[in-house]
Amino acid sequence: MFYVDNRLQFPVRVESPNPVFARALQQAIGGVEGEVRVALQYMFQAFGARGGDGRHRDLLMNTAAEELGHIEMLATAVALNLEGAPLSMQEEAAQDPVAGHVMNGMNLRHILSTGLAALPADAEGVPFDASHVYASGNLAADMLANVTAEATGRALATRLYGMTQDPGMREMLAFLIARDNMHQQQWLAAIEDMGGLQAAMPIPNSFPLDQENQDFSHVLLGFQADGSAPPEGRWSQGPTMDGRGEFSARHMEPLGEEPELAPPPPGSGAQEEQM
Amino acid sequence: MFYVDNRLQFPVRVESPNPVFARALQQAIGGVEGEVRVALQYMFQAFGARGGDGRHRDLLMNTAAEELGHIEMLATAVALNLEGAPLSMQEEAAQDPVAGHVMNGMNLRHILSTGLAALPADAEGVPFDASHVYASGNLAADMLANVTAEATGRALATRLYGMTQDPGMREMLAFLIARDNMHQQQWLAAIEDMGGLQAAMPIPNSFPLDQENQDFSHVLLGFQADGSAPPEGRWSQGPTMDGRGEFSARHMEPLGEEPELAPPPPGSGAQEEQM
Amino acid sequence: MFYVDNRLQFPVRVESPNPVFARALQQAIGGVEGEVRVALQYMFQAFGARGGDGRHRDLLMNTAAEELGHIEMLATAVALNLEGAPLSMQEEAAQDPVAGHVMNGMNLRHILSTGLAALPADAEGVPFDASHVYASGNLAADMLANVTAEATGRALATRLYGMTQDPGMREMLAFLIARDNMHQQQWLAAIEDMGGLQAAMPIPNSFPLDQENQDFSHVLLGFQADGSAPPEGRWSQGPTMDGRGEFSARHMEPLGEEPELAPPPPGSGAQEEQM
Amino acid sequence: MFYVDNRLQFPVRVESPNPVFARALQQAIGGVEGEVRVALQYMFQAFGARGGDGRHRDLLMNTAAEELGHIEMLATAVALNLEGAPLSMQEEAAQDPVAGHVMNGMNLRHILSTGLAALPADAEGVPFDASHVYASGNLAADMLANVTAEATGRALATRLYGMTQDPGMREMLAFLIARDNMHQQQWLAAIEDMGGLQAAMPIPNSFPLDQENQDFSHVLLGFQADGSAPPEGRWSQGPTMDGRGEFSARHMEPLGEEPELAPPPPGSGAQEEQM
Amino acid sequence: MFYVDNRLQFPVRVESPNPVFARALQQAIGGVEGEVRVALQYMFQAFGARGGDGRHRDLLMNTAAEELGHIEMLATAVALNLEGAPLSMQEEAAQDPVAGHVMNGMNLRHILSTGLAALPADAEGVPFDASHVYASGNLAADMLANVTAEATGRALATRLYGMTQDPGMREMLAFLIARDNMHQQQWLAAIEDMGGLQAAMPIPNSFPLDQENQDFSHVLLGFQADGSAPPEGRWSQGPTMDGRGEFSARHMEPLGEEPELAPPPPGSGAQEEQM
Amino acid sequence: MFYVDNRLQFPVRVESPNPVFARALQQAIGGVEGEVRVALQYMFQAFGARGGDGRHRDLLMNTAAEELGHIEMLATAVALNLEGAPLSMQEEAAQDPVAGHVMNGMNLRHILSTGLAALPADAEGVPFDASHVYASGNLAADMLANVTAEATGRALATRLYGMTQDPGMREMLAFLIARDNMHQQQWLAAIEDMGGLQAAMPIPNSFPLDQENQDFSHVLLGFQADGSAPPEGRWSQGPTMDGRGEFSARHMEPLGEEPELAPPPPGSGAQEEQM
Repeated sequence: MFYVDNRLQFPVRVESPNPVFARALQQAIGGVEGEVRVALQYMFQAFGARGGDGRHRDLLMNTAAEELGHIEMLATAVALNLEGAPLSMQEEAAQDPVAGHVMNGMNLRHILSTGLAALPADAEGVPFDASHVYASGNLAADMLANVTAEATGRALATRLYGMTQDPGMREMLAFLIARDNMHQQQWLAAIEDMGGLQAAMPIPNSFPLDQENQDFSHVLLGFQADGSAPPEGRWSQGPTMDGRGEFSARHMEPLGEEPELAPPPPGSGAQEEQM
Repeated sequence: MFYVDNRLQFPVRVESPNPVFARALQQAIGGVEGEVRVALQYMFQAFGARGGDGRHRDLLMNTAAEELGHIEMLATAVALNLEGAPLSMQEEAAQDPVAGHVMNGMNLRHILSTGLAALPADAEGVPFDASHVYASGNLAADMLANVTAEATGRALATRLYGMTQDPGMREMLAFLIARDNMHQQQWLAAIEDMGGLQAAMPIPNSFPLDQENQDFSHVLLGFQADGSAPPEGRWSQGPTMDGRGEFSARHMEPLGEEPELAPPPPGSGAQEEQM
Repeated sequence: MFYVDNRLQFPVRVESPNPVFARALQQAIGGVEGEVRVALQYMFQAFGARGGDGRHRDLLMNTAAEELGHIEMLATAVALNLEGAPLSMQEEAAQDPVAGHVMNGMNLRHILSTGLAALPADAEGVPFDASHVYASGNLAADMLANVTAEATGRALATRLYGMTQDPGMREMLAFLIARDNMHQQQWLAAIEDMGGLQAAMPIPNSFPLDQENQDFSHVLLGFQADGSAPPEGRWSQGPTMDGRGEFSARHMEPLGEEPELAPPPPGSGAQEEQM
Repeated sequence: MFYVDNRLQFPVRVESPNPVFARALQQAIGGVEGEVRVALQYMFQAFGARGGDGRHRDLLMNTAAEELGHIEMLATAVALNLEGAPLSMQEEAAQDPVAGHVMNGMNLRHILSTGLAALPADAEGVPFDASHVYASGNLAADMLANVTAEATGRALATRLYGMTQDPGMREMLAFLIARDNMHQQQWLAAIEDMGGLQAAMPIPNSFPLDQENQDFSHVLLGFQADGSAPPEGRWSQGPTMDGRGEFSARHMEPLGEEPELAPPPPGSGAQEEQM
Repeated sequence: MFYVDNRLQFPVRVESPNPVFARALQQAIGGVEGEVRVALQYMFQAFGARGGDGRHRDLLMNTAAEELGHIEMLATAVALNLEGAPLSMQEEAAQDPVAGHVMNGMNLRHILSTGLAALPADAEGVPFDASHVYASGNLAADMLANVTAEATGRALATRLYGMTQDPGMREMLAFLIARDNMHQQQWLAAIEDMGGLQAAMPIPNSFPLDQENQDFSHVLLGFQADGSAPPEGRWSQGPTMDGRGEFSARHMEPLGEEPELAPPPPGSGAQEEQM
Repeated sequence: MFYVDNRLQFPVRVESPNPVFARALQQAIGGVEGEVRVALQYMFQAFGARGGDGRHRDLLMNTAAEELGHIEMLATAVALNLEGAPLSMQEEAAQDPVAGHVMNGMNLRHILSTGLAALPADAEGVPFDASHVYASGNLAADMLANVTAEATGRALATRLYGMTQDPGMREMLAFLIARDNMHQQQWLAAIEDMGGLQAAMPIPNSFPLDQENQDFSHVLLGFQADGSAPPEGRWSQGPTMDGRGEFSARHMEPLGEEPELAPPPPGSGAQEEQM
């Protein structure tokens, strides 16, 4: 269960409110790279954590709590950036017409739906949808998903940092960028803690390898229309990343035939011409 | 651009059609772990690939072509599993009542919307949505996203393998499981090709570290309500995974204050009591 | 069943077409506070109305018919606001560059997808989705949902009113604001007609109260991290709103244990390390 | 910010795991009546709370923390109900064939996507989407939305209670039903705390009433095709619920004309026949 | 504007309620082939109708009114099929265990969310989303979209007809199938009324043909990996359907080069290795 | 299966990059009229093609391959239009303030989520969702759906053509407009190849006409509130389009009664007042 402290994890202040930047910040709340996603993702991974020694569950719950606080910080930042936003087109026209036109670049729902507050949606106004919560029941897959989420999350935060010169916003973002750094490190450390990435692969490592078609486990197949070899690199030669084989490469030809389906049965809604 | 060969990459055959297994297979087509997603993901990563020596773009396009063929294989498997499916409740009742009731477990849209063919949707009938296509413009983040996609994809394929005893389906899945193995290896090899995961971190590694708040870059913050330390592990001590620091851990106290927003301006749709 | 009169319920005219205001108006059509939602909501509540004397079904159908006419009014307003909109970036640049840049603030699909007409989508271009149609089978819950919908709908309409100075648009909105007022009153009156809000609570009032855990029915539980009491107010003392008890308040401590799930069974796709 | 205690708010135990009931429980997690929705709704209302004395913000944050714990309880219940679920169709056939066929009624993603754990989705597998988070910036509208959410939430919980005989599940649900009772009471108390529902109406009460078209503020308009009067009730006579007028009723005739739009401009993608 | 008659357009009766058939019927309400879609589609086409003599607008509004009545009929059919549905798993087990297990095949939200009534969702529980409302501003495209919608709608209705033996349901469906027949005819007649399909093509016929790249207007390009010709048929020889040219066919070779994008600019979130 | 050639089907070049036009181009990628949709639609129609002589399957696969190449062209065009886009609000302000403000009109996710590359989303940032893939199992319905898709696709492309003066973009669009022309022709030719549209109707033509309610198969029913006749035209007189009857028209009166549902059963979550 969760408790709340009404103070913020880190100070949030805005010197020059900017409603267009408020729109941009929404991506860090409700975007696929955002905080609602990771908060729910870590929770649902914890809720379904089976096996192991329980530390992963606890670490996930702990970090979920932190991410909930980041949603709060960012939503506060959105609300502060919306202060002074134009509520009418006349109000806007009366502002400096060169610097103006801010309503064009705003999320209009910041006026129409929330009365100058954050939405659980992304920078284009698309509501967050929880299909992005990856919790696979496989610990290694989940930890990789978490590193990935923090990588795209940090990329987003650095882009937001670059987009603004507001000192308060940069201070907040510099904090969040650091936390995304730490979280990348910590989830990768969790994999090392389990025995390392090499041992974890192929994920899931509990499936008997002799049941997969091992003729195709380590070969880069080429799909170049001219029959040429696929692009060369570390992926086409040398030991595989799990140390269980050697990479190779070759052009692919179809091994199957053109599919043949049975004709449509009567009453299945096809045209007579199909029968 | 793409070309087509109407033959399948690998044979697809079904000995005992099973409409409920057809529903399950949909997850591998239109689920978040499925083939439509990776096909589009590799394409959009390729379409937006900036910088580097071009081999990553080519590798992404090459693998996208393979995944398109996997959609075809799985959609064919769904269509074959639907042959002989009941079209009416009477037809079903006339079957062995103990073995029967298959319509209860079917995706009814396999009858109603497609006339016994696959949908671009998941096992619960939810259509694929392209928000799951991760193409961040950051090569390391994208490659991690790809390893993750192949890890959850392989977990899914092994679960489907366990769900069926049909020899044809197991043969097809054993092939796909092997390809997911290779694809995990190849995307991780791409990271090694770029200099390795350690050098890639924190992602993006192009953001000047002195602009992040480095007091918080390597510390596990604890959010335990009782003030106790967060769970210990590789993530709380020893060198960080990027080799740029040492992990530590400590309890977190709020550094900010309770947020104070300006009252709602007139005309913003609030209640009088709020003003 | 429904009939149509091709005239509008109330006049819709636009003196100064404004394509950005057309975008804003979309929220009142396809937004969660909009008319498509209430029209469908009242319909589906009517279609599923069980029990009672039938007047509620009739009232719902009657008001659904009105809301269908409001969609028409608003869609007409969008189309009129789009007249004269720029179709090309050159056309736009030739306009007054200070007043211009209107294409930046438009919903581009008003040009690209509809040829200058309304979409069943909100102000950010997100299509209406019918999950927002609340029809619970519980009459009191539905009536409250309807008051709520009309409250947010009226808040939206007043914000749109404030956003424009166009006399025709203000005239139309002043009418819609009045109708939202009436509809708030009428759905609340329907609750009074059933016996009033106090008697209706807790909703559903048909569930035997002795089957709920009455130790927790009237107590405000506190989740303050520092163990302090939750915020005080009418909600923490005095008789409850249904008159069946007294409010109280106290801090919450966990009554359960840390969850313990069984380890993952073989073949469930977990890592070996989890087993 | 939030803290976590890894123990559950209330005990969750399952005597007879039932994977179909696990599917049903999903509605209380990721359905529109579920806990993810209210947790986020109370958070975003708090994050955007402007004006007033701050107690509403604190109450919202406090209750959000409770709802987060309810997500955890329900997700744990789902995981426990999935223990022993069939992973293969053969495994299932070996069970009692009369009592069996459980896989037909399961959410197959509980096997395929999560390895026997909860999803942030509803009982039909549709992922939660945050467009259901109502936070309007209007305190009265938000409180009504909250009463509504708790009313449909309690209706759902009583239906789940009726669906199962498992003593552990009934104990958990009896607790949640009580909490939904309290939360209905508390949000309604918050409206009383602001001055009561009568004073709050029409929502928003800050819009000058003389700017709405008051000829239509208190009249039930009839849309009966045969021109008959609309259904009579409390909504058609007597004082309005806000005490500011008297209800009346009359048949509606169109006040506007058939809309006339300008013909499509050249280059707008219409057919020649339209021009 | 719309009026309502509370009687149904056509009788709806159910002799043997079947909750699984209720699930199937949902596709005809909220599916992409369903009635909510066409009702809204015809409305929005009417609302945006520009140019012409106004009869198309009137015909669209007229048919929209009919489709609204079909939603009502189908929703009533769902509610009637749900009467007697099991509310608890115990209740179900007490029924004939061979004929039983109906809850497995039900939409559980018919119990949990609506209390035995219809949802605006499809047979798999996915809510209707209005992105399926095609209203393009081009009359010929819209009329074709309408014929298509009625074609898939009629296919669906015939599949539902085949799925049930209930005389009441078959009577209702036989009526709806006939109406879908008429609606196919009427929208195609509307194209003939405009001058016929040949004159309408290519759609939009208002775009000057000399501005398209006419070397590619009538040639079937082949994308066979082996360089062979594309499949032959009416589409590869003879006059084109608009009578403006002759079909031909040839293999396609790339005319463009491999894309070359500029490297990522500093601050765009890429890896150093990309720059 | 598919192969790839890394060169583009047709040259893509941009002389004057325009980030707002990049937003507009997104509609042709991920919009309902766009290329992702048709590529998947033709694939899934092919994957489910039952009956006939196999040429339709091959034609669908062939054209799917072409459309995949169009996605690539358009995504490349988006990336090229984004080159030089402002990454910060300061950078933008330093540009010509009259021509500027481009960030207002951009899809901010082109900066924040992709680092200046295309998204699989529409012009308003809404991700593509595969529910728009129509593959009905009925060949005539599918071919009509394809003509429709190419008609709206060509309307979109001509609108994009009109929106820009960039010679490179116009050259690319002139090619795509021609291909949409050809594809309209080819799918209509496929219907002719099957025997023509008249023989295909009513779709599906395999359903015995004597099972539909033929009293309603060819009559335009009127839903005018004043009882007047529905609008006259080719749709109300003369032979039907399938040659199987004569059109007629008449006003519609309800043939059914007001629906009567059973009261809610105990335990179904209704209010006591409903029982």
